[in-house]
Amino acid sequence: MNLSEALKQVKFDARGLVAAIAQDAKTGEVLMLAWMNREALEKTLQTKDVHYWSRSRDTLWRKGETSGHTQKLKEFYVDCDGDTVLLKVEQTGPACHTGNKTCFFNKI
Amino acid sequence: MNLSEALKQVKFDARGLVAAIAQDAKTGEVLMLAWMNREALEKTLQTKDVHYWSRSRDTLWRKGETSGHTQKLKEFYVDCDGDTVLLKVEQTGPACHTGNKTCFFNKI
Repeated sequence: MNLSEALKQVKFDARGLVAAIAQDAKTGEVLMLAWMNREALEKTLQTKDVHYWSRSRDTLWRKGETSGHTQKLKEFYVDCDGDTVLLKVEQTGPACHTGNKTCFFNKI
Repeated sequence: MNLSEALKQVKFDARGLVAAIAQDAKTGEVLMLAWMNREALEKTLQTKDVHYWSRSRDTLWRKGETSGHTQKLKEFYVDCDGDTVLLKVEQTGPACHTGNKTCFFNKI
């Protein structure tokens, strides 16, 4: 994973954010959708600990920093138009704050 | 899949949109991220042909209407805070306009 290559290809939106889909690297389950700013992207690629930008709290957060439910980055993809990234991660514990494995537990 | 239940749980943003992740129902591959407005959501659940809202063209589109690369909805999930939906789909042909199976073909 090459940070400068990622920064070349990712297109941050007017708010300075890019959408990030986290997928369990082993099971293929889609775990959550969150947002990254440039700093979150940099820290994620540098440390392999997934970081996001919280739009509600307006702050950078390392996933699992309070819950312990961390995400370790295994693979990193940028989509065809650069406005979404896909993170294949090793998820420790549940990804969702509700205690569910994935945020998409609600099947309609 | 119950449309009125979906409309109860989905929270459209200030632009009237919700993020939609399409995942191949068979392989688990994440195919693309796009956006839905209320009409796209309604048509998708009613017809099972996936519809999105194009932010660049400012119009409703049925996935595959020009390319033939349609998506048939198999399962529909709403995430824990209602601002993202996950569509498990049967993808005909490539999902990406580049001709790649998925929009996330670019591994960094």
